Amino acid sequence: MKTRAAVAMEAGKPLVIEEVDLDGPKAGEVLVEIKATGVCHTDAFTLSGADPEGLFPTILGHEGAGVVLEVGAGVTSVQPGDHVIPLYTPECRQCEYCLSGKTNLCQAIRATQGKGLMPDGTSRFSLNGRMLHHYMGCSTFANHTVLPEISLAKIDPDAPFDKVCYVGCGVTTGVGAVLYTAHVEPGANVVVFGLGGIGLNVIQGARMVGADMIVGVDINPARREMAARFGMTHFVNPNEIDGDLVAHLVELTGGGADYSFECIGNVNVMRAALECCHKGWGVSTIIGVAGAGQEISTRPFQLVTGRKWQGTAFGGARGRTDVPKIVDWYMKGRIEIDPLITHVMPLERINDAFDLMHEGKSIRSVITF
Amino acid sequence: MKTRAAVAMEAGKPLVIEEVDLDGPKAGEVLVEIKATGVCHTDAFTLSGADPEGLFPTILGHEGAGVVLEVGAGVTSVQPGDHVIPLYTPECRQCEYCLSGKTNLCQAIRATQGKGLMPDGTSRFSLNGRMLHHYMGCSTFANHTVLPEISLAKIDPDAPFDKVCYVGCGVTTGVGAVLYTAHVEPGANVVVFGLGGIGLNVIQGARMVGADMIVGVDINPARREMAARFGMTHFVNPNEIDGDLVAHLVELTGGGADYSFECIGNVNVMRAALECCHKGWGVSTIIGVAGAGQEISTRPFQLVTGRKWQGTAFGGARGRTDVPKIVDWYMKGRIEIDPLITHVMPLERINDAFDLMHEGKSIRSVITF
Repeated sequence: MKTRAAVAMEAGKPLVIEEVDLDGPKAGEVLVEIKATGVCHTDAFTLSGADPEGLFPTILGHEGAGVVLEVGAGVTSVQPGDHVIPLYTPECRQCEYCLSGKTNLCQAIRATQGKGLMPDGTSRFSLNGRMLHHYMGCSTFANHTVLPEISLAKIDPDAPFDKVCYVGCGVTTGVGAVLYTAHVEPGANVVVFGLGGIGLNVIQGARMVGADMIVGVDINPARREMAARFGMTHFVNPNEIDGDLVAHLVELTGGGADYSFECIGNVNVMRAALECCHKGWGVSTIIGVAGAGQEISTRPFQLVTGRKWQGTAFGGARGRTDVPKIVDWYMKGRIEIDPLITHVMPLERINDAFDLMHEGKSIRSVITF
Repeated sequence: MKTRAAVAMEAGKPLVIEEVDLDGPKAGEVLVEIKATGVCHTDAFTLSGADPEGLFPTILGHEGAGVVLEVGAGVTSVQPGDHVIPLYTPECRQCEYCLSGKTNLCQAIRATQGKGLMPDGTSRFSLNGRMLHHYMGCSTFANHTVLPEISLAKIDPDAPFDKVCYVGCGVTTGVGAVLYTAHVEPGANVVVFGLGGIGLNVIQGARMVGADMIVGVDINPARREMAARFGMTHFVNPNEIDGDLVAHLVELTGGGADYSFECIGNVNVMRAALECCHKGWGVSTIIGVAGAGQEISTRPFQLVTGRKWQGTAFGGARGRTDVPKIVDWYMKGRIEIDPLITHVMPLERINDAFDLMHEGKSIRSVITF
């Protein structure tokens, strides 16, 4: 079949809108009509050429929502008409990782997904006979895409595509880090570094589980208002305090954060996030992605006196199990998404979405088909 | 009263045996007759003068066992005749830390203990009218000492003092790290860096909880035999392998350690201990104490892909609650201590015990009174 897609022909160039060729689903695969997709920093990172694992030409996009049109042989967990969110972190429920009960990093199709291919080692996409790579196992910048069955979360059919597509990455990454990685408990004090989209989702995750004090840290005062709306109780601008940021946060929280989250990708902030944690039990979770080769450091005394340092990917969420729950929480009003979708536009304007992101003018832009 | 003690008059000098003056227990305090005490690297560290918090003159020693002789007003948890182990990490069961259920780092008497004083701000020890500092709240290099009630674990009266004194520090630090900090589960793969006294206790802790593979890493092949006796299943000498140690350990463990322990205090080894952990769930626990100002580093990717970095002090054990259990495990044969006590000597030879330690000729020397 033919489908309309934004194609990244090469690194550093704008996407081009094309009618591309899409083969139907093979065994264990599913054809999905994408109804909406977010545009995420990770797409921009790969498009820029800075991602050493980036492959071109490709169809980017990994934060979508849509409807199942057709299933391949052996597919049992979804059927045509089901509403789904594509998962860049699949959940096979059979590999050592899934069965460990300790991680969401399913390894079932990691090798082929990393090569921009379906599990059988081929691509479903082509343009004028030239193979196009899949991206993060999703390729949601196309009106239709094919995914492995294990890469689809079946969601509430009443959920609006142009909102819950954001659950496919940003919402789950932030809310999930609170629930599934840090396991924040009611009454905890939380410090969140970076109040962009991820940070805002961490904040509302902390609010949802009943955190007491929720401190937001950002050098941009314009981000204060939205963060407060999402549950932030205290705002700290590092440029506006006297003295050391860590000491200030320890003082403010009455001994240190029970849980801190780094949502920027800055290794110096990662250190501050660890060191502002409470002696004896503070847990710091890294969400942001640092530049290649950069390292985090601290004195081991910080750990020996009871702080823990950890990270999270896709919020520690198991895609097929947890993503539908997060959509339900949105539908019940327990978390908010609408204010985070700052721009909605058609596929033809997708390069504008990247521009808005680079200029810091959007929280999340969503493309609707 | 008078008691015989090894006094550290100043940093870097041998201990001197003296008849010192000891005031009786005040309210909430307990007079203990020390029957045996281990000589630990931490005593040597302070005696050397390298410990920035070291105070002189003092009576060192923090790994003892003895009998309660007299209790001060209000003491209810022990009585004369009880056998006890002094605790450098007390357990008040009332402070924020104890009540958190997340840490063993009771803060009830931290300030005065750090100053070498009893909780009322004074010392019970003096020599020729000159105040002697307490050490780590214990001062077990004296035949009699006074401790706060919250710093005493009441133990099985049948336990031999010259063995279970080692539970006062080394045994609990190693075994406890496995049980109370890392929470190693049956079937886990464990990698232990450094096969000195702490490493051996980590190994037997891992054996006790049913770990599957227990890998010991040490550059000293002479340590292999004892480690095997304590439960090590695989030995790796970093000087005898080709290529990268981390890659070797990941290969050996079939993907990485479920749990690793650093028992040396070397920041480069701490990094290797983290990075040899299994993607998705490996947990690395720092036990060793690094030199002042030294830092640990890694790429944050190590954490984002599911490894956790943490530390432990006194094995995460709550002194009054867990130390008696560890003594019971020794009495039941579930853990071994006897082979670790390589030397037993009278107080007059205590400087020989330090020499044996510095020369690497002892695992643990015990002084008996």
